[in-house]
Amino acid sequence: MYHAPLKDMRFVFRHLIDRSTLASTYDHDAWGDDLSDAIFDEAAKFASDIIAPTNAGGDKGSVRSEDGTVITPAGFKDAYAAMGAAGWTAMDASEEHGGQAMPMAVSAIVNEMWQSANMSFALCHLLTQGQIYALEKYASAEHKAQYIQPMVEGRWTGTMNLTEPQAGTDLAAIRSMAIPDGDHYRISGQKIYITYGEHDMAENIVHLVLARTPDAPEGHKGISVFLVPKYLINPDGSLGERNDVTCVSIEKKLGIKGSPTAVLQYGDNGGAVGYLVGELHKGLEIMFAMMNHARFMVGLQGLAISERAYQQALSYAMDRKQGTPLDGKNGDAIIGHPDVLRLMASMRADIMAMRGLLGIGAAAMDMATHNPEKNHQDRLGLLVPIIKGWLTELSLEITSQAIQVHGGMGFIEETGAAQHYRDARILPIYEGTTAIQANDLVFRKTLRDGGASITALLDDIDADMDALIAENMEQILPMASRVRTSTACARDAISHLLASANTPRKAAASGHHFIMMMGMLTGGWQMVRGAAMAIKQSKEQGADIDFLTTRWTLADVFVTQRMPQADALAETIMTGDEAVLTVAAELLAAEA
Amino acid sequence: MYHAPLKDMRFVFRHLIDRSTLASTYDHDAWGDDLSDAIFDEAAKFASDIIAPTNAGGDKGSVRSEDGTVITPAGFKDAYAAMGAAGWTAMDASEEHGGQAMPMAVSAIVNEMWQSANMSFALCHLLTQGQIYALEKYASAEHKAQYIQPMVEGRWTGTMNLTEPQAGTDLAAIRSMAIPDGDHYRISGQKIYITYGEHDMAENIVHLVLARTPDAPEGHKGISVFLVPKYLINPDGSLGERNDVTCVSIEKKLGIKGSPTAVLQYGDNGGAVGYLVGELHKGLEIMFAMMNHARFMVGLQGLAISERAYQQALSYAMDRKQGTPLDGKNGDAIIGHPDVLRLMASMRADIMAMRGLLGIGAAAMDMATHNPEKNHQDRLGLLVPIIKGWLTELSLEITSQAIQVHGGMGFIEETGAAQHYRDARILPIYEGTTAIQANDLVFRKTLRDGGASITALLDDIDADMDALIAENMEQILPMASRVRTSTACARDAISHLLASANTPRKAAASGHHFIMMMGMLTGGWQMVRGAAMAIKQSKEQGADIDFLTTRWTLADVFVTQRMPQADALAETIMTGDEAVLTVAAELLAAEA
Repeated sequence: MYHAPLKDMRFVFRHLIDRSTLASTYDHDAWGDDLSDAIFDEAAKFASDIIAPTNAGGDKGSVRSEDGTVITPAGFKDAYAAMGAAGWTAMDASEEHGGQAMPMAVSAIVNEMWQSANMSFALCHLLTQGQIYALEKYASAEHKAQYIQPMVEGRWTGTMNLTEPQAGTDLAAIRSMAIPDGDHYRISGQKIYITYGEHDMAENIVHLVLARTPDAPEGHKGISVFLVPKYLINPDGSLGERNDVTCVSIEKKLGIKGSPTAVLQYGDNGGAVGYLVGELHKGLEIMFAMMNHARFMVGLQGLAISERAYQQALSYAMDRKQGTPLDGKNGDAIIGHPDVLRLMASMRADIMAMRGLLGIGAAAMDMATHNPEKNHQDRLGLLVPIIKGWLTELSLEITSQAIQVHGGMGFIEETGAAQHYRDARILPIYEGTTAIQANDLVFRKTLRDGGASITALLDDIDADMDALIAENMEQILPMASRVRTSTACARDAISHLLASANTPRKAAASGHHFIMMMGMLTGGWQMVRGAAMAIKQSKEQGADIDFLTTRWTLADVFVTQRMPQADALAETIMTGDEAVLTVAAELLAAEA
Repeated sequence: MYHAPLKDMRFVFRHLIDRSTLASTYDHDAWGDDLSDAIFDEAAKFASDIIAPTNAGGDKGSVRSEDGTVITPAGFKDAYAAMGAAGWTAMDASEEHGGQAMPMAVSAIVNEMWQSANMSFALCHLLTQGQIYALEKYASAEHKAQYIQPMVEGRWTGTMNLTEPQAGTDLAAIRSMAIPDGDHYRISGQKIYITYGEHDMAENIVHLVLARTPDAPEGHKGISVFLVPKYLINPDGSLGERNDVTCVSIEKKLGIKGSPTAVLQYGDNGGAVGYLVGELHKGLEIMFAMMNHARFMVGLQGLAISERAYQQALSYAMDRKQGTPLDGKNGDAIIGHPDVLRLMASMRADIMAMRGLLGIGAAAMDMATHNPEKNHQDRLGLLVPIIKGWLTELSLEITSQAIQVHGGMGFIEETGAAQHYRDARILPIYEGTTAIQANDLVFRKTLRDGGASITALLDDIDADMDALIAENMEQILPMASRVRTSTACARDAISHLLASANTPRKAAASGHHFIMMMGMLTGGWQMVRGAAMAIKQSKEQGADIDFLTTRWTLADVFVTQRMPQADALAETIMTGDEAVLTVAAELLAAEA
């Protein structure tokens, strides 16, 4: 069972996102509370009624492969058709291609519901949205006209083909070939880890494939992007013959077992027909341009799987009876035990912080999309690796805590808690491991501009905290002051990183700690902002006192648990880099 | 592949364990370096050659159940027979019953090897040792003579039957019945989560079952322990008729899939024949007496699974090539990347700290077993919940890091990294969840004596650190001083806990943080002690410089990463309890 946490979603949309800035990019009235409420309500019903019931069965039944055909679990095909029929596959595309051009500030909240309801299933939508995004930006007018609308309508789906066995994180090592052949290319090579690379939910599958042309320079400068449909398209738009791409196998994975992860073989019979997207040899640039979107969406999956695991744990904790809680009475449920309450409160506080951070990230994406100014791009560039890195790592912790609440039942697969733990484990890996996010944050986003962007972010946090401190609200003062302490520690840590600019191995050794520290800080920022707003609103007529009280109490939980950890990470950044680099790999190997 | 980390195991045995104190309980010469080296070498071979090859297949094939018969995975039965034939099942029992009466300081190291080699398989040995321990302490002379020797020889195995569907953590809720019937009892009821409750590796299975007699008082004071063999024993020691206990089903679990977790039904045909162990209505006391042993062994499993996962990740990191590391050259393996080195160094440092803490825990158990003085019991009583709680929680982090090192390959089951992650997840749950360990440490071990025992432990840490600071060794001074800072923070946190003695819900809300803080502190203590010894030894003729250098470098890694975290936990203990308790369960439930 899944119920969208609509109160918290609306709180983030209405109060944490600064819609006065969004108003310059979108029609403020059009995307105001009435329309967004209606969208959220409908999406919540669709997620609970249509998608969520496919989740456990999708894990248990898993996706299957028979002679190159891939059969998705029971219910997936119908659910995807229903998404298309209800228009949910059209959210993010432009109106020109039949889409709804929804702001990310709205669509992120809806997407959280899909991913909570069934992450394996919703991955197909996620990747298709990414491809629509890429084609709208880089494809020719002819390709846009041919390919986007069927994906918007939910009849076709899209994939990303990057990885090869020798080329995972290092895309420069790609060997797949694209040989010019008239108005198209002939693609050959093997691609692995292709999510929804083959399946039975769509009439056609559109692959975006990274490959090299024969004259391409070595390394990452010689890579181009090609559009390779499973079925070729006739001039009238109908489907033609099958292209030369086959599904060799699908992987047996730890989690997201409902989604096919395919090995695709291109060109065994003369070469698959592919069409160049964008300019030749600019493939990695195009990929990087898509990455903000893709990485943001994976961070969102971290939030979504955490929310689903939390809901299941809460339901168990409110129902299960075991022992009489301290100061409780016989027959009280286990949430009466202080440690179970700690687990549930910590999970919920973390999830609220994640959702708040994701909300300002979505708003930053909207601003960056519609405003070419560098400061918008810079802010988004900072937030994306933090969101991807921190939210996905945190999802491992939260899905584990959800198992712990269940005790021995959590270890039994039938309970369902274990599935979330298994599913979440891919999130800090795909679309760039946490180390890749950390390198991005350290080198491209912090050292390259001498710390200017990250300092501006800390300045914004401090300005908000200082304003709240000045308001002198009893409940807010201690938490705002505590966040202020942590930003000071973070500035020291950043100074240390900046001083390592000429010894990049030192900076790289601290990248993981840096990204986690920034996650906690930006999460704390949103929690304290939200707490202050909740207190103010709670004085208004008809306020939802229960919800608002929970929000400021959980801000206190977050600040007292996470701010000390942020400071600990700052200390490790300042004192721990040399110790790690002194450990010689040969010494570790000497006694393996 | 698994290779016992013999250098580190010997280092712990020779240098961290104070054998001058052990000498008063064991013959120091007999259990000196020559014999222990020979045992460790032989055990290492047995673990690598006989047990470890069964691990992946045991997970993939899983244990199966057919009509009440349980078939263990391929190789398990032969491996257990080989353990018996080689005498490894006799380590811990007394010489009177055919055992070798090995000190725990030796046997813990050997047991780590079994658990690393195949945790699912070695669980059977673990439980059988626990039962031998219980019978030697509490069974009648007649029962000892009948039951212990066949278990020592590896022909029979033992189980613990505590849990019932309504009685997990709360054993007072047990309903299984034991009706007197001549010289024995008739047992009836259902027991769940019975590890190796039914299997094909032994001629007979001896169940220790918690149940109530008809006249027993309500709650935990009315529980007794009964010995219930699968096959009754004839007067000549041969096996007689089948007892009235059947395996109803086995669980489909997240991990340890090679081990059967059985639902056992007693008494469907008139009642299973059972014999009282110890005194009537003293069942929970007997269980508690066994718990130090059982919980220590589960902490050991946390170390063991971490070591296994680390070895697999190291092997991958030394072999896999992907991108050119900073300041490296094309073709360098991924361990050249600073973040991969950070992961590997952190894992290894944590594992060394775990092994050091487990070593002093084993020595404390030997001292407590042979010396009735209260201070030995108190020290063991403190260390056991820390070892069980911290080592098992840490194993989740380390097995997760091992997946991360593998990137996408870590998520594919064939690689094997995911198995360790799944296997480890039971460890913070069984033999008392981390919350139970935390309650034990807070209430029974800290508040009950007004903090005397835990203060004595901190005094010991400080005395060691002060002595090292006085020696003024360049590499040791900063780390000893850093641990000293953390013990001061810990004392503040403990004062806060002691001040909460009259508001036990506050103390309970901080228990998890307290146990983790004490784990980091005691781990840091052993790492710094070991580092100082390593530096001194490195000046001796023929010293293994590589190994010793790794040891003090990794101490620096541990101290710079974990001591700041310990201080952060101390702060949360002092500032975070009220926030958690303010979160009302009803408020959480209001928007689930």
